[in-house]
Amino acid sequence: MSHIIAVDIGGTHIRVALYGPEGTQPVRHRRVETQTYRGRLFEGLAAQIKSLWPAEEEVVAIGVASPGPLDPETGIILSTPNIPEWVDFPLGPKLAERFGVPVHVDNDANLAALGEWRFGAGRGHEHLVYLTISTGIGGGVISHGRLLHGAQGLGGELGHVPILPDGPLCSCGRPGHLEALASGPAIVRYVQERMASGAETALKSTMRVDARAVADAARKGDTLAREAFARAGKYLGLAVAGFLHIFNPSILILGGGVAQSGDLLLGPLQESLQTQLLNPAYLHHLTITTASLGDDAGLLGALALARLKRP
Amino acid sequence: MSHIIAVDIGGTHIRVALYGPEGTQPVRHRRVETQTYRGRLFEGLAAQIKSLWPAEEEVVAIGVASPGPLDPETGIILSTPNIPEWVDFPLGPKLAERFGVPVHVDNDANLAALGEWRFGAGRGHEHLVYLTISTGIGGGVISHGRLLHGAQGLGGELGHVPILPDGPLCSCGRPGHLEALASGPAIVRYVQERMASGAETALKSTMRVDARAVADAARKGDTLAREAFARAGKYLGLAVAGFLHIFNPSILILGGGVAQSGDLLLGPLQESLQTQLLNPAYLHHLTITTASLGDDAGLLGALALARLKRP
Repeated sequence: MSHIIAVDIGGTHIRVALYGPEGTQPVRHRRVETQTYRGRLFEGLAAQIKSLWPAEEEVVAIGVASPGPLDPETGIILSTPNIPEWVDFPLGPKLAERFGVPVHVDNDANLAALGEWRFGAGRGHEHLVYLTISTGIGGGVISHGRLLHGAQGLGGELGHVPILPDGPLCSCGRPGHLEALASGPAIVRYVQERMASGAETALKSTMRVDARAVADAARKGDTLAREAFARAGKYLGLAVAGFLHIFNPSILILGGGVAQSGDLLLGPLQESLQTQLLNPAYLHHLTITTASLGDDAGLLGALALARLKRP
Repeated sequence: MSHIIAVDIGGTHIRVALYGPEGTQPVRHRRVETQTYRGRLFEGLAAQIKSLWPAEEEVVAIGVASPGPLDPETGIILSTPNIPEWVDFPLGPKLAERFGVPVHVDNDANLAALGEWRFGAGRGHEHLVYLTISTGIGGGVISHGRLLHGAQGLGGELGHVPILPDGPLCSCGRPGHLEALASGPAIVRYVQERMASGAETALKSTMRVDARAVADAARKGDTLAREAFARAGKYLGLAVAGFLHIFNPSILILGGGVAQSGDLLLGPLQESLQTQLLNPAYLHHLTITTASLGDDAGLLGALALARLKRP
């Protein structure tokens, strides 16, 4: 029976799983720290895939969720910050050659969107916008029942829409992108800057300020911490208003760790969204919800991709 | 032989044309001032269509470009500023009932995009972003060879992406949308505000300041006029950077009167775009060009729509 191997290459872990022809429960599953294979990731990945390969069953395809930017048509990784040896790296072709099966590659945020659409919070929707808010902000869009890629597969970069002209620098080096205003590090940076200029906060006694610590402090009523989430939520609301006007989705799915902070973020997001809408009709058939697949979204998206591409 | 009637309902003119089974030259064509039918637009429109109806040939469909927002699935106009009697108005169904043929309705900017894609500057592209910059800013997107509509047909409103938080009010009543920063009236408003606060400009001697007068003054070297176009171009560049990150199109088409101002607008647009791009790859296979169908874009889009929907 036709099995599929799905791979999710994350900043901290690589996950590889073998799936049967139906369902989303893996037959076997491996999880290794990405650091383990530093400088020789391809060989490490190939060894993991080999270790899962079934003796008795046929594997018909491999699906891979990788950090980008990458070309989903060719399976070539253009470059990716955490894996310096992968520059113009033909990941898809190399895996296909090694294992003798078709290999389908797409970026992690696109595949998380695809995973949520096929198996998670987005089931049944033809028009879906997915945002993952954590260390960065990634996006994936399903439009008319199809994952949006653009001409070279570089579309769907929703974290890099300009939101605040001349705003803080983004991880990509450009000013004022959404990611620079509403990701976890952006929330932390705002708190640190305000602390440096003397703002009062319970976080002064915290050893390590990260987005989770800010969320904890905010839940206990800390003014600066609440302000930091309110600011991120405000800018997210602006961006989301734009996405609604552009895509008119029936569902907006928020994934990633920062989206777990609940009303701290969602309250200001909704408030800011309301101040920006062209027409209330954009909300009439819209569901706003958090992702339901958690850390499995990328892996299940890679599975969904391989199944969708099955001839 | 199967003919098609195309209709373009504009703020100043209504155009109705009869087309044969092939080509884009109308067999017959009418153009009437929209004002002529004030308060009874539907009856006037129906009379124009009837006057074009061929005696000997079969008409298989009517395509209509209308101001929106509207529902392209049902052909119902939700409301439209210039035609107060059309609120939740079933334009498509009423025309279909009157003439006994399928009627396909979509909004004017979407159909201008479709027209440019099938017959104009966008031929051969699968991923196209169209912006029309005139009294307002409208948009239309072709993604994976399909016009993007969204769940209720309200997508593609590219003029209403938030660009400047707390910026000037848009025609839709919301602050800081692209249309409020880069449309013709936005350019004029900026000049007038600067004039009111004492800025020097040759436009002081001009009876009526409109976007064309500002463009003329800018071409003669007027500092304030050049500044007004530079400002609009800057904000357009921010928006376009976002559209490239979102859609990764292979062509960006700029239509509408303000886009005719050439380098006055396009220079600053390109400069600002460059400061915002996540990756230079977004420009590698991108054509930026002006629209080629002029005032015919909506009519030809309505024709293209009716032909695409032909069973």
